[in-house]
Amino acid sequence: MPNAVLDLAMDLVSRPSVTPEDGGCQDLLIRRLEAIGFQVTRLPAGEVHNFWAERGARGPRLCFAGHTDVVPPGPREDWHSDPFTPTLHNGCLYGRGAADMKGSLAAMVVAAERFVALHPDHPGRLAFLITSDEEGIAVDGTRRVVEWLQAAGQSIDWCVVGEPSSEEHLGDCIKNGRRGSLNGRLTVHGIQGHIAYPEKADNPIHRSLRPLADLAARSWDQGNAHFPPTRLQFSNIHAGTGVGNVIPGSLQADFNFRFSPESTPEALQTGVEGVLDGADLRYSIDWQLSGPPFFTPPGDLVDAATQAIRAVTGREARLSTAGGTSDGRFIAQLGGQVLELGPINATIHKVNECVAAADLDQLAQIYTQIMTVLLSKTHAHSSPSHAQ
Amino acid sequence: MPNAVLDLAMDLVSRPSVTPEDGGCQDLLIRRLEAIGFQVTRLPAGEVHNFWAERGARGPRLCFAGHTDVVPPGPREDWHSDPFTPTLHNGCLYGRGAADMKGSLAAMVVAAERFVALHPDHPGRLAFLITSDEEGIAVDGTRRVVEWLQAAGQSIDWCVVGEPSSEEHLGDCIKNGRRGSLNGRLTVHGIQGHIAYPEKADNPIHRSLRPLADLAARSWDQGNAHFPPTRLQFSNIHAGTGVGNVIPGSLQADFNFRFSPESTPEALQTGVEGVLDGADLRYSIDWQLSGPPFFTPPGDLVDAATQAIRAVTGREARLSTAGGTSDGRFIAQLGGQVLELGPINATIHKVNECVAAADLDQLAQIYTQIMTVLLSKTHAHSSPSHAQ
Repeated sequence: MPNAVLDLAMDLVSRPSVTPEDGGCQDLLIRRLEAIGFQVTRLPAGEVHNFWAERGARGPRLCFAGHTDVVPPGPREDWHSDPFTPTLHNGCLYGRGAADMKGSLAAMVVAAERFVALHPDHPGRLAFLITSDEEGIAVDGTRRVVEWLQAAGQSIDWCVVGEPSSEEHLGDCIKNGRRGSLNGRLTVHGIQGHIAYPEKADNPIHRSLRPLADLAARSWDQGNAHFPPTRLQFSNIHAGTGVGNVIPGSLQADFNFRFSPESTPEALQTGVEGVLDGADLRYSIDWQLSGPPFFTPPGDLVDAATQAIRAVTGREARLSTAGGTSDGRFIAQLGGQVLELGPINATIHKVNECVAAADLDQLAQIYTQIMTVLLSKTHAHSSPSHAQ
Repeated sequence: MPNAVLDLAMDLVSRPSVTPEDGGCQDLLIRRLEAIGFQVTRLPAGEVHNFWAERGARGPRLCFAGHTDVVPPGPREDWHSDPFTPTLHNGCLYGRGAADMKGSLAAMVVAAERFVALHPDHPGRLAFLITSDEEGIAVDGTRRVVEWLQAAGQSIDWCVVGEPSSEEHLGDCIKNGRRGSLNGRLTVHGIQGHIAYPEKADNPIHRSLRPLADLAARSWDQGNAHFPPTRLQFSNIHAGTGVGNVIPGSLQADFNFRFSPESTPEALQTGVEGVLDGADLRYSIDWQLSGPPFFTPPGDLVDAATQAIRAVTGREARLSTAGGTSDGRFIAQLGGQVLELGPINATIHKVNECVAAADLDQLAQIYTQIMTVLLSKTHAHSSPSHAQ
C-alpha cells in the first residue's frame, strides 16, 4: 500500500478547512484511529474542533500533535490549480494545507497504523492531539486541550508536532524550541494644537521619536547556545489627524518581542518602561504575553527523531529554535519534551502550496521509527525525565 | 447711527457661509459699496465667490481685504446659541464668523461709508478685495484676484487685512508679517516581512526613528528681530498593516515648516534631505510650498495704523509676525505694504465665537482713521514706497 499517505493527504486537502473550520477532516482521522484501537475524546470549544485520541492504558506517553485548519488560499486565479482540489504534478501534491499540515497528519495516522500492525500490544501510550485553531487566534484550540489534560492530572512525556520544520530537504531541520513572544501597545499622550503654535501644544511625535529609537536599538540579551538574542520590532506606528495643520494629541505604537529564555517577560517590560520613564513621557502600555519560550534539550525525543531521520533519509538533522510561534508553546507547559518535525516549509502560507509525495512517504517512515524507538520496552519501562 | 457696524455684522452672521460657501454675504457687501460709488468686479473661480471693488480713478491705492467664508461650527449642542443666529449677550455678538471675520467686514464697509460721506472726492483709490476661500484650501480665492490684478498691471500700495490680530484688547497687536509655510510628505521605503524574521525584512520604522528625531531636534535658523526661529513640526506619522506580526513595507510622515525670512524653502529642503541621506534611507519627499514669508517694515501703513489705534483706543499696538498663514502672503506678492488688523482672536475657530459690539464700533473708527490718514492730499500726491 505504497500510496497510503498520499491518498489520505489528498482526502484531507479536498476538505476545505480555512481556520477555524475543520471541514470534516477530524471525522476522517477519528475513523482511522478508532479502527486501530484508539479511544477518542472530542473536545469542541466554541466553533473550534479538537480531539484527543489515545491507545494504551499506562506507561510513558508519546503524542503526535497537529491541526486540520489552514490559512486562506487567497485569490483562486493566483493558483495553478484549485487550492481545495488535490492535484498531483511532477511528483508533488498541490493544495492549501498540503505542507501545513495535512500532509503531516496523513503521515502520522498512517505511521500509527503501521506501528500498531507490527506492535499491537505496544507498551506505553500513543496519543494524538488535533485542533482546528492553530492558524487563527489559537485560543480555543491546543490551549483548551492542554487545560483539559492538566485538569485531569495528565502529562505528555514526548510530543512531536507536525509543523513543517524542514527547509531544503526533508528532515534537515528539527525545531526543538521556540522563542517567546510578547506584545506591547504603547500610547504616548501629548496635547493637540495648531501646528503654527507648537508652544501651546505638546507634540507626541516629537516626544516619542528619540526614546522609540532607543528601544529599537537596545540590546536585550545575547541569547545562548540554543537561542538567538532577543529582538524588539515595531509593527505599527500611528499619530495624526490626517490634516497637515494639527499637532496630534497622542501617538500609538505596537511592538513585539521574540525573546530567548535569557530574558523574562517581566524583565523586558521593566526595560521598556525604564527607557520611557527616562524620556519623561506620559504614556500607557497594554502588554500581552503571546507565549513563553520553550526548549527541549537533546535527550530521548531529540535522539529518537535524529536517529529516525538518519535511518530513513541518511541526513543529519540540524536543531533550531528560530521562527514564529507554534502550538508547541502550549504543549511544553505540560512539562514534557516537545519538538517539531514535518515537511519542507518553502511554500506554506503561499499560493501553489505543495509537498513531494516521496517526502510524505518518508515522513511516515520517520514517524513510525520514532514510535518504535520510544515505545519499545526499554524506554517504556523506564521513567523518562520531564526536566526542561 | 451708532449700531451700523453691529447691524451689518449680524446680517452677515445670519447668512451661513461655511467655506467655500458665501451664503449671500458678498451680495450684501456689494450693494452697500455700489451705493457709495464703488465699481465692483465679480471674480468667481470654480465654486468660490470673489470680488474686487474700487472707488477713485488714480493715485495710490489703499485696499481692505477679507473673507466671507467661515470654518464649520461643529456640533450645534456645543454652542450656547445657534451659530448662524446672531445673538447679543452681555454686549457681545455670538455666532460663527463674528470675530473671523464678518465683524471686520462690517467695520470696513461702515468705515468706507463714513469716510466717503466726509470725503466724497477723496484723492487716491480705496479698494476692497473679498473672497469666500480663505478658511479652505485658498486656491481659488485671494490668489486668483491677485493674479487678475497682476495680469492687468495693477498694484496695491497699502493693504489692511481684517484678520483678528488683537489678543487681549482691541488694537493691542498688529501683524506686520507672517512666517512662511512649507509642507513635506516623507515616504521611507523598507521591505515587508514576518515579525519573527526581521533579518529577512527591512523595518522602515526602525530605520526612520533616529533621523526623524534628528529632524525634530534640529535648529534651522535663529530668526531675526521681527521673526521667531524657523520650526519644524510633524503632524502625521503612519506605518503598519494593523496586525501585530507583520513588519511594514513603508512609513509615511508629514511635516510642516513655519519659517522666517532667514531661511529659504530651498535651504530647508536641502537640510532635510541632508539628514535623511546621512541616515542611508531609501525615501521620497513631496514638497509643497504653502506660502513664502512676508514682512512690512514700519512705514506709512504701520504708522497710520498705530496712530489710528492710539487715537481711538489709547493703546500702543505691538508688531508681531507670529501665528499661522493668512491671505496677506498672496497680497504681499503685489509688492505693497500689508498688515493685519482686526478684533480679538481668543474665540476664533472655537464654539461660542464672539466679538464685543463696542470693539466693532471702535474697529470701524480705526479703519476710517487709516483711510483718512493715507488718502489725504499729502500722501495721495506723493508716490509711496513699494520697498519691502
